Amino acid sequence: MATRTDLANAIRALAMDAVQKANSGHPGMPMGMAEIGLALWGNGNYRHNPQNPQWANRDRFVLSNGHGSMLQYAMLHLTGYDVSIDDVKNFRQLHSKTPGHPEVHYTPGVETTTGPLGQGITNAVGMALAEKLLANEFNKPGLEIVDHNTWVFLGDGCLMEGVSHEACALAGVWQLGKLIAFWDDNGISIDGHVEGWFNEDIPQRFESYGWQVIRAVDGHDVDALEAAIAAAKAEPNKPTLICAKTIIGKGSPNKAASHDCHGAPLGNDEIAATRAAIGWTHEPFVIPADVYAGWDKKEAGAKWEGEWNALFTKYAAQFPAEAAEFTRRMKGELPTNWQELVKNAVAEANAKAETIATRKASQNAIQAFAPNVPELLGGSADLTGSNLTAWKGAESLKVVDGKISGRHISYGVREFGMSAIMNGIVLHGGFRPYGGTFLMFCEYALNALRMAALMKTNNIFVYTHDSIGLGEDGPTHQPVEQLQTLRCIPNMNVWRTADTVESVVAWADAIEQRQTPSSLIFSRQNLAFMSRTEAQIADIKKGGYVLRDAADAKVVLIATGSEVELAVKAFDALAAEGIAARVVSMPSTNVFDKQDAAYKASVLPAGVPRLAVEAATSDFWRKYVGLEGDVIGIDTFGESAPAGTLFKLYGFTVENVVARAKALVK
Amino acid sequence: MATRTDLANAIRALAMDAVQKANSGHPGMPMGMAEIGLALWGNGNYRHNPQNPQWANRDRFVLSNGHGSMLQYAMLHLTGYDVSIDDVKNFRQLHSKTPGHPEVHYTPGVETTTGPLGQGITNAVGMALAEKLLANEFNKPGLEIVDHNTWVFLGDGCLMEGVSHEACALAGVWQLGKLIAFWDDNGISIDGHVEGWFNEDIPQRFESYGWQVIRAVDGHDVDALEAAIAAAKAEPNKPTLICAKTIIGKGSPNKAASHDCHGAPLGNDEIAATRAAIGWTHEPFVIPADVYAGWDKKEAGAKWEGEWNALFTKYAAQFPAEAAEFTRRMKGELPTNWQELVKNAVAEANAKAETIATRKASQNAIQAFAPNVPELLGGSADLTGSNLTAWKGAESLKVVDGKISGRHISYGVREFGMSAIMNGIVLHGGFRPYGGTFLMFCEYALNALRMAALMKTNNIFVYTHDSIGLGEDGPTHQPVEQLQTLRCIPNMNVWRTADTVESVVAWADAIEQRQTPSSLIFSRQNLAFMSRTEAQIADIKKGGYVLRDAADAKVVLIATGSEVELAVKAFDALAAEGIAARVVSMPSTNVFDKQDAAYKASVLPAGVPRLAVEAATSDFWRKYVGLEGDVIGIDTFGESAPAGTLFKLYGFTVENVVARAKALVK
Repeated sequence: MATRTDLANAIRALAMDAVQKANSGHPGMPMGMAEIGLALWGNGNYRHNPQNPQWANRDRFVLSNGHGSMLQYAMLHLTGYDVSIDDVKNFRQLHSKTPGHPEVHYTPGVETTTGPLGQGITNAVGMALAEKLLANEFNKPGLEIVDHNTWVFLGDGCLMEGVSHEACALAGVWQLGKLIAFWDDNGISIDGHVEGWFNEDIPQRFESYGWQVIRAVDGHDVDALEAAIAAAKAEPNKPTLICAKTIIGKGSPNKAASHDCHGAPLGNDEIAATRAAIGWTHEPFVIPADVYAGWDKKEAGAKWEGEWNALFTKYAAQFPAEAAEFTRRMKGELPTNWQELVKNAVAEANAKAETIATRKASQNAIQAFAPNVPELLGGSADLTGSNLTAWKGAESLKVVDGKISGRHISYGVREFGMSAIMNGIVLHGGFRPYGGTFLMFCEYALNALRMAALMKTNNIFVYTHDSIGLGEDGPTHQPVEQLQTLRCIPNMNVWRTADTVESVVAWADAIEQRQTPSSLIFSRQNLAFMSRTEAQIADIKKGGYVLRDAADAKVVLIATGSEVELAVKAFDALAAEGIAARVVSMPSTNVFDKQDAAYKASVLPAGVPRLAVEAATSDFWRKYVGLEGDVIGIDTFGESAPAGTLFKLYGFTVENVVARAKALVK
Repeated sequence: MATRTDLANAIRALAMDAVQKANSGHPGMPMGMAEIGLALWGNGNYRHNPQNPQWANRDRFVLSNGHGSMLQYAMLHLTGYDVSIDDVKNFRQLHSKTPGHPEVHYTPGVETTTGPLGQGITNAVGMALAEKLLANEFNKPGLEIVDHNTWVFLGDGCLMEGVSHEACALAGVWQLGKLIAFWDDNGISIDGHVEGWFNEDIPQRFESYGWQVIRAVDGHDVDALEAAIAAAKAEPNKPTLICAKTIIGKGSPNKAASHDCHGAPLGNDEIAATRAAIGWTHEPFVIPADVYAGWDKKEAGAKWEGEWNALFTKYAAQFPAEAAEFTRRMKGELPTNWQELVKNAVAEANAKAETIATRKASQNAIQAFAPNVPELLGGSADLTGSNLTAWKGAESLKVVDGKISGRHISYGVREFGMSAIMNGIVLHGGFRPYGGTFLMFCEYALNALRMAALMKTNNIFVYTHDSIGLGEDGPTHQPVEQLQTLRCIPNMNVWRTADTVESVVAWADAIEQRQTPSSLIFSRQNLAFMSRTEAQIADIKKGGYVLRDAADAKVVLIATGSEVELAVKAFDALAAEGIAARVVSMPSTNVFDKQDAAYKASVLPAGVPRLAVEAATSDFWRKYVGLEGDVIGIDTFGESAPAGTLFKLYGFTVENVVARAKALVK
């Protein structure tokens, strides 16, 4: 039978050999965290089923220090996931199951994509929150169908990143007792020994957040680690940080405890020396049968899932409606009456014909959907009353006697934390999170938006106060280039709506997405209602459509959001001068771009000059207006002044639109 | 003589009246921090000269909770800055000296632009670091010409933001004893009472960072505040956090201690009630003479600066070279031999004709300049060996016995903190900071880059690993849309260079900027050296120029960075097929856009079709190629694989460039 030493060394061998073969990667972390991996994955602590990585009640595992991906691949391979030794040999090769950093949807058993430091632990906070909320919603006495831990490995880098502060503070507030993190305290980051830039007292910091901290655990002592795990599991209302003192690259005679082994292959000589030092005599990628047997969790996993299946069967017998709802929610399917909800909401918005701020229109859409779509989990980064993300009857998230409930989250002033937590909530399953802040502050969270798009999570980001139209708060708060920034993220749908009807359509489209996050952009100020035919209303969801038209139009005015009214007024003024024009409302360029060529050409006919009007940077619009067209945009920062003053200052007047349009008409 | 109560109430009155007149703003914070403002600014604690806001050795003041701008405007007005009562009346109006949030360069005495929470305290860390480094460099025994404090007001929101964690951890590491922050502990943020989202133990957290924490100070007791200030000043090697318990909106009978007064005018009735409650009988914007007299610091300020001037005169007599150097550095002027340095560095790069990674070319440029430009203060967010930001002979920043020295900073894995600290360093004066990370992680710091551009600080952001060319680390680390994101920030120069010569020119241009930050983008992988004429070398600094040309070119290939070599090879292949082409290297679109129309037309002649080639999102290039041209770009995420494999996968081959170019030739 393989010894614990053998089992841990199997990770070391796979990590150093795979990195060497790829000639790229990070061997130091997996070699340093091998015993921690063993303590968690090598026995009954990590509850999963390698043969069904989608089991609803599995534990979740997040490698927040994702550069140590070979640790995770080694454990997935050894415990019996569909990650073969050939997959391990293909480490970091094109379209392999073992990319450079762990990527969800690429590798069975990988729960989230990590690498950008600090976001893994933040995703994990979202997963643990989702678990706790689902448990509160669905569990019945003796029938705890939602009951699992979320485990995190993290390094010094994650703890330096600001987002870890935001996330871990919230984990304390939310009393996420089932969140258990291991700090790989190896004293090394890429620049070397960390004392010169990282000397905070981590236990004290985490105690300030309300965490249980287990100090000074020997990260190479499996018994000590298991004791720490037991203590962590015994604490129901505090997340736990296990401070595990480790040696980076442990086993390497000449590179352990040095940043030399952090991000580069050890080299063949040092690998040979390491093999000798740790007593691992096997060829690269050869794992003895007894080591496989020691790691294998296929049988245990089948048993664990089997027990849960039996429990769920019992639950379903007693609570069939709840069981069906739980299943639907975990599958990410919308309620059966969804289409009807949308139809009614659009019809109501159209009938009411209100001239209101689109942030208010957004709230109306939320009000129409949220009571009937219980997976919607709202929130705001301390701007609830400005973003208008709450709805009538929405209970605010709160923790009472260790139990958490509520469907609208005050995340505090933590945009990045909120966004990466939302990513974790989606990845867990059971909820569709949305969260609001001012459009400007999408910048604080930008990489979490990108990660959502990369991971194909269908979050909804709500951004209000979308332009100079916010007025007096000034240039620090007035978006100019942010629309363009969001629109160029691959797989991100961006909507900037012109009125109540477009707003509800945008919300419906965002909710219907399965693999694409959406950013919904709304105004602070009132925007005029636009009358439309049924056909026009149906076309909104194509992202761009003809809103006003005249026969044989000589110029096309393209506008979004608050500038649509301006374009319509200019259309009227041009008509009064006998100039035929067309107005295209383009609430989502991303969605419009996905339409077929015939539709796009029908909206933007070739040969007719185009003028884009949007209170944002102008360059973006060249993809629609070309070099011959024109753009009324803003290519400087804004100013602090009332909104009306600013729109005039920057040329967003009917007169200017008319003049610029006329200049295009040959 | 005005009482302390009168003096504090003058702030309350100005704040509530100005917000009411603007019908927009945040009265709660100034009313709650009035006594703190008085304790600091109302006596000798804050050393400044209202009649010379540029005095080199003034204390620095940062309102990190910038929404409370009326507090700062009130203090500037009352102490004697060139901020008149009419300026105060113009609060939040177009082009006034009193914009919605404090903006540097708009208002005398405002040291940095704040509003985006957490960044003010981070700027302040940069200012305090600059002070400590300059003191170490220039002070002589008995002649401490650099010796001032940096003071910060901050609120709960700043403490929630992740960037405050990054900055305050570093302030502890760097032992910034002259940094003193007041926490406005009012228990209220916009969503209401903070317990539901912000319950961390702040004193414990800051002690974990190595700060001195002065707990539980009554923020309305001026004596207690002055005692705390004295204790803070007495601690030389630890930054101090003064935890001041306050009541938001104090004085307002019905809105104090509630978020109702956070971000909206009190209303005329409540203002009247407040006047009655606090005993302030004066009309709006009327301040009695004795209150002015109590606040006035013109005389004291002239004395403080006079004493320093005498000290500096003495210093200059004994150390004339150092005095001249200090004066040059604080003015932000380059050394007199600068042009010669540039000429030599460019000539050397051209003569060596090396094919190396542009990150290495960047390091060569740093090596050429930094030893002779002592204000250059380098750093990296824990990627020094990858970004290649250090140079031979660069001492790493270190603190020994409370003294700090060094010219290359390991900021740790803190991209946002690094960037906003760099902003603070520039604002302080005396240094030109540059800092590196991977291009991808500009996203963690994006709003600090925007703030640099808005504040016209001339930082230099160094971004390496600029595309799929980084290879195996995969899509989490491979920039695609980031170039476009950076290029659309107003007043940000972005350079992506093709070889050693372009790299040194880009560095020289960045260093020469006075009011514009630069982002310098470099490759991980080797890029071929390009031969050029002297005229072509001179044109690099125009941002775009003709690198290869054939008479009567039928197609223009525009490329940047690693794709320039590809364009040149395609040019040769086209020539071999008898097709005349032109290659334009466009290292900086932003700089190219600033050239005159004639130059631009000479590079991109009208009527000749254009093909842009860049391993990044393609939409951006429509502004140069129009709808008729073509772009070879990447509009999806990358993949984990060796770089060569990826360039092929995404169509960055000579064959594809040639084929696409031919398709454009009529």
